[in-house]
Amino acid sequence: MPDILHKVGIKSSSPDDVYNASTTIEGLSAWWTTSTQGRSKVGDVLKFRFGRDRGFDMKMLELQPAKHVIWQVVEEPEDWIGTKISFDPDQRGDWTIVLFKTEGWKEPVEFMHHCSTKWGVFLPCLKSLLETGKGASYPHDIKLDSWE
Amino acid sequence: MPDILHKVGIKSSSPDDVYNASTTIEGLSAWWTTSTQGRSKVGDVLKFRFGRDRGFDMKMLELQPAKHVIWQVVEEPEDWIGTKISFDPDQRGDWTIVLFKTEGWKEPVEFMHHCSTKWGVFLPCLKSLLETGKGASYPHDIKLDSWE
Repeated sequence: MPDILHKVGIKSSSPDDVYNASTTIEGLSAWWTTSTQGRSKVGDVLKFRFGRDRGFDMKMLELQPAKHVIWQVVEEPEDWIGTKISFDPDQRGDWTIVLFKTEGWKEPVEFMHHCSTKWGVFLPCLKSLLETGKGASYPHDIKLDSWE
Repeated sequence: MPDILHKVGIKSSSPDDVYNASTTIEGLSAWWTTSTQGRSKVGDVLKFRFGRDRGFDMKMLELQPAKHVIWQVVEEPEDWIGTKISFDPDQRGDWTIVLFKTEGWKEPVEFMHHCSTKWGVFLPCLKSLLETGKGASYPHDIKLDSWE
């Protein structure tokens, strides 16, 4: 099964900071999309929108402060449904290392290629948010192609 | 076997432009690393360096103008050796779509996570080069972590 894997290192940060940025409405709005709504509790759903009709609903599967976050896509787009998205922060010296994964894709479809590159755009925004206070979330993100 | 997959769309470009940017010293120097040396012919090796002692030697396996480019890593780092890197441009209306893949990783090691995110940084530089003339190749690229 093909996965999307990424890694960023964040200076002057902490696993707690990464956890907060990837589990609170305020944090997610600052580096992923300004249109983030819902409650970030295990079993609840967060709604991420990128324009009026486009986006994802994610169920919070695991929320271990400063350690481990897992979401699962429960609504559209179809290729994503059932896939799981995880963030694993780890402190190593001056750096907070974040390993990121989306797993459960059935096939390496073109939309998976797009998402892989797009996470490569957004994870540096998470890094930038925690290092500088500025995150470039949607609609201020780098656009990649005609799908955006 | 885990792969790294990416996709970017480039406006006002062509598969020929993508081919040239991913096979000539001038093109590669502008969006990947300013330290690119060698001859870009099938069977020959290109040397990409990121600082004095870090980089990759790539053998050119297939060069089909405007269609298909495949490199294979033949020297360091060890995790990369044998992996193949491909660029496939395709014209779709106003957009040149580039599907990118690195395949042949034995394990999803942490270095693979790093490379995946880093290609997510560099492929938008390829896009930017062809759309605006500016590419932000190494050493002007976004740095991700302590490995850089």
